[in-house]
Amino acid sequence: MLSKNQIKLITRLKHKKHRYKEGLFIAEGVKVINELLDSNFKLRELYTTMSFNSNANLAVAGQEFLITAAELKKISSLNTPNKALALFQIPKARPISNNQFIVALDNVRDPGNLGTIIRLCDWFGVSDLVCNTETVDVYNSKVIQATMGSITRVNVSYLDLPSFLNKTKMTTYGAFMKGDHIYENKLPKEGILVLGNEANGISKEVEHTINKRISIPRFGALKKTESLNVATATAILLSEFRRNS
Amino acid sequence: MLSKNQIKLITRLKHKKHRYKEGLFIAEGVKVINELLDSNFKLRELYTTMSFNSNANLAVAGQEFLITAAELKKISSLNTPNKALALFQIPKARPISNNQFIVALDNVRDPGNLGTIIRLCDWFGVSDLVCNTETVDVYNSKVIQATMGSITRVNVSYLDLPSFLNKTKMTTYGAFMKGDHIYENKLPKEGILVLGNEANGISKEVEHTINKRISIPRFGALKKTESLNVATATAILLSEFRRNS
Repeated sequence: MLSKNQIKLITRLKHKKHRYKEGLFIAEGVKVINELLDSNFKLRELYTTMSFNSNANLAVAGQEFLITAAELKKISSLNTPNKALALFQIPKARPISNNQFIVALDNVRDPGNLGTIIRLCDWFGVSDLVCNTETVDVYNSKVIQATMGSITRVNVSYLDLPSFLNKTKMTTYGAFMKGDHIYENKLPKEGILVLGNEANGISKEVEHTINKRISIPRFGALKKTESLNVATATAILLSEFRRNS
Repeated sequence: MLSKNQIKLITRLKHKKHRYKEGLFIAEGVKVINELLDSNFKLRELYTTMSFNSNANLAVAGQEFLITAAELKKISSLNTPNKALALFQIPKARPISNNQFIVALDNVRDPGNLGTIIRLCDWFGVSDLVCNTETVDVYNSKVIQATMGSITRVNVSYLDLPSFLNKTKMTTYGAFMKGDHIYENKLPKEGILVLGNEANGISKEVEHTINKRISIPRFGALKKTESLNVATATAILLSEFRRNS
């Protein structure tokens, strides 16, 4: 059975401030929890309607609480809770590898977009994603959900983005509506790809640090589409950077 | 003020069966409604907290009902309703243009994915999207929302997909986890690109009709990412087909 204190803690962890105060975040669903258990993330508590203990590889003994579907529904943020909810420790920040391809986000606000971008980084072998501090928190449970486990393989750092981009020796590429068409120039293996906010694009502050403005050509007779979603733009740009490497 | 019958009708239109029975669908938000008003879609009723009448180009006279924010909240499916909700007529099916590039969906279930794919078709100048009948309904309000107005420029048809693909003279390309790597072969200007279900990919029935299996290479040392989201895969594949044209 769930205690009042357990419910209270889980409810508090839905807010960023409390996540960092407690050093904990929520993960939901069997697939995501299994991926986290299978990685370096440290489990604190596992609330589940089925036992995870049968999997010999997973050290969940003493941290597993069997609960009812009704109790899970109570603590879950999902419309259709998926058998388990777990609390993991927020790991310490890891250093950013230099001289590799890096993706940078400037004010991305939608949890689904951040999660999808992390999954894309994982697919395209990008190990570092850096975000300005206004970008949605990676430990938001909707982000964790949307990464589909890719969070275990991509190092997400929050930092002062204009200052980071000012200091870097790598070439910075910014995604703009107007810029060099990506199909016309061969893109390099190394660099920093910067993507901006869903509605407003890259901020003025970050714009000053961009070396090359790039854009995805629009096709068709009408060309009335206003913009691409930031996650689909990231998909196209990462594919384009990688296809030549 | 909203009448009981108006509320009843709007509630019914949240279900596919009733949408097709009434020949109406719901669109929400100023941007989407303006794009629909500005196109060939026919407005039936407009419920709004602000007046659209000031825009001389829009024929909304006699169909506009001023309502309160509380009333809008009552009929809206959005967490944060955006000033207006409108009912438009479902247009008659238009013929599919042949000998052009076509995107085909096999069992895509998520409204956000379908909406994003329509927006991508619009961006990349693909005027026809064909879907098997199990694919989520394009007149679902979440789909309309996610298209951001692109629904006015992309012709979406529902049909017997295996039979359509069997009959076509165009080459059919299916997105699979295992197939020819897209960067290695130049993709043509014409053809049908087929994408499958979020969890299960392309169905067996449709698989038989595929001429070329294509896949997006995975990068990095680990290569543990299981798959890409269907909308991001569509983004990468459409970009790859168009970059050569």
